[in-house]
Amino acid sequence: MLGACSTPVLRGTGDLGVVIERATGSVQIVDTSKQTAIAQVNGLGDLSHASLVYSRDGRYAYVFGRDGGLSKVDLLRGVIERRVIQAGNSIGGAISQDGKLLAAQNYAPGGVKIFSADTLELIADIPAVYGNDGLRSKVVGLADAPGNRFVWSLFDAGEIWVGDFTEPGKPRIKKFKNIGREPYDGLITPNGRYYLAGLFGEDGMALLDLWHPEQGVRRILDGYGRGQEKLPVFKMPHLRGWAVAGRHAYLPAVGHHEVLVVDMETWREVGRIKVSSQPVFVIARPDGRQVWVIYAFPDNGKVDVIDVESRSIIKQLAPGRTVLHMEFAPRGESVWVSVRDDNRVMVYDTENFAQRGVLPAESPSGIFFTHRAARTGF
Amino acid sequence: MLGACSTPVLRGTGDLGVVIERATGSVQIVDTSKQTAIAQVNGLGDLSHASLVYSRDGRYAYVFGRDGGLSKVDLLRGVIERRVIQAGNSIGGAISQDGKLLAAQNYAPGGVKIFSADTLELIADIPAVYGNDGLRSKVVGLADAPGNRFVWSLFDAGEIWVGDFTEPGKPRIKKFKNIGREPYDGLITPNGRYYLAGLFGEDGMALLDLWHPEQGVRRILDGYGRGQEKLPVFKMPHLRGWAVAGRHAYLPAVGHHEVLVVDMETWREVGRIKVSSQPVFVIARPDGRQVWVIYAFPDNGKVDVIDVESRSIIKQLAPGRTVLHMEFAPRGESVWVSVRDDNRVMVYDTENFAQRGVLPAESPSGIFFTHRAARTGF
Repeated sequence: MLGACSTPVLRGTGDLGVVIERATGSVQIVDTSKQTAIAQVNGLGDLSHASLVYSRDGRYAYVFGRDGGLSKVDLLRGVIERRVIQAGNSIGGAISQDGKLLAAQNYAPGGVKIFSADTLELIADIPAVYGNDGLRSKVVGLADAPGNRFVWSLFDAGEIWVGDFTEPGKPRIKKFKNIGREPYDGLITPNGRYYLAGLFGEDGMALLDLWHPEQGVRRILDGYGRGQEKLPVFKMPHLRGWAVAGRHAYLPAVGHHEVLVVDMETWREVGRIKVSSQPVFVIARPDGRQVWVIYAFPDNGKVDVIDVESRSIIKQLAPGRTVLHMEFAPRGESVWVSVRDDNRVMVYDTENFAQRGVLPAESPSGIFFTHRAARTGF
Repeated sequence: MLGACSTPVLRGTGDLGVVIERATGSVQIVDTSKQTAIAQVNGLGDLSHASLVYSRDGRYAYVFGRDGGLSKVDLLRGVIERRVIQAGNSIGGAISQDGKLLAAQNYAPGGVKIFSADTLELIADIPAVYGNDGLRSKVVGLADAPGNRFVWSLFDAGEIWVGDFTEPGKPRIKKFKNIGREPYDGLITPNGRYYLAGLFGEDGMALLDLWHPEQGVRRILDGYGRGQEKLPVFKMPHLRGWAVAGRHAYLPAVGHHEVLVVDMETWREVGRIKVSSQPVFVIARPDGRQVWVIYAFPDNGKVDVIDVESRSIIKQLAPGRTVLHMEFAPRGESVWVSVRDDNRVMVYDTENFAQRGVLPAESPSGIFFTHRAARTGF
């Protein structure tokens, strides 16, 4: 009897999360209430630079591997339910507002592919073809937007594309050209209104108001300093909606030891905060009172906490060797930090910075909690 | 074998919700992906003016009944797991940032009680005693705040109290007196920073900056018009964090056929929107591009949709007789509307306003989806 009934434990999924173990192609499923791992899932392929999104119900994680693998992981049973190899070199994905469509952004072959979130069947293929010679661009900065849309950037072409998937098999694609050289990543603001692409090939960023696409893409933060000194860039920073606190976005200044403070009403720089090194992730605590920063080599053992009101660093932490990612609990009381070379994930209290837990993990990188399913731009 | 294994279906809880059926003391558990009811739970007592909050994992709904009943409902098994009668007359509750504590706000005996979210055991009792004669006030406007705090208002005393429950059994209570006459409800902004109490006894609202409690409570929107004409008030409006879109809060003007637009940086009125009747709920679509309004008698069959940019009504809907509540899907693609006297819940597409579904329900009132577990001020 017991054997027949040894089904997984009945439980809510609102306090679950996944930690990517990049070296072993595995993930750990974690419980953020008890601060423990509940399962390990293997066989996910190349998880360097892996990311994931969650199903609308929070039960499944869709893991996008660097090798083009797209795996649907069942958090409750701790198994891979489905897996497809959808490209040769992939860089992440997104899930549609209604939870029915997955989008994968691919380097090779360059483009976006749309899948059923239920079955992983291919629904639409949108090659990132540009110019007159049939060239295909790498795709970066893919984000979900309200109205069942996805937005992405073409690194090689300098374009932003907006796809409306209201009819999934017949996407309507709007292309914005000449948006700037080498967009390297993008973010959508948490309200789903503004899409912002960081430019590696020149100073500044490209901004698209999705409430008014007819106004086209405009350049912001022109000449914010990247080109001025031609600093070496040790690791490209990541952009996503998490860098927003109140009316300000906190953006990594590529190559600089600075975080830019940008007013999202005027889209002008209103401040710069000196930080310890080249920022890679700049993430606001959910209440927007703090912004946490982690860095590129050789300062990738540091974590700095910025107080938003004073725009100064109020705390420095040293979780260990090679800090790769951070994720806040949904309501912000704690933050989980992956420390790759010490094979552990650290949990900190965000009010008093006390250490709340340590979890062993194999070369942990990305950490993702299920509340992302309910947010735009994550 | 089958009998022994007839356990509930394994499923995620991220797309579940609860609809209060006020006349029958029951709730329906609904699936917002499939737009169906999956269970009905009876025996919840007097559910007039009932509200609920969710456990951190999204599995349990804590239902606060008008009769002082506090019930822990298991959404996966469709049963009441625990139930206590904690007061004679209660008006709702909140759950702490860490998910471990429930707070109930009571009219009689007036005060706040703190319970273990796990066991429903009483942890702390904070009578709302004021003045020199041992009088107890009704408590209203209870909200959760970062730092495991709760904030509430004393209707009869004109006070705001902030309780820090870092040590749950030894709460530290800070009292703000003379904040204005008859606070009738409160809201905390989604970032958890500002607590705002609406005043019934005079024009204006009371504002507390929880980042700077040392600055005390200040009066805002003084003389916004309530007293001027002494309009009859058919139903007190409700305030909660859902009325915030971008830097503006959209607040029901008590007694008026207006929604006030308030700039949350200056806390000044920056506009008024004429609406169909006396607003009861003013709720922003999660992306803040629309604000939906429902009304008091005799216009409680109407739903108006305000476009935030133009500050004008762009759509009017007539879902049926006596519309009592609305709840948006987490990412805003649809909204559920309870229509009490037609015994149904209507589901609308928020992009094109098409009807997406109808669910039968017995005198439905409040609708609550599990993503609230991950938000402050809900």
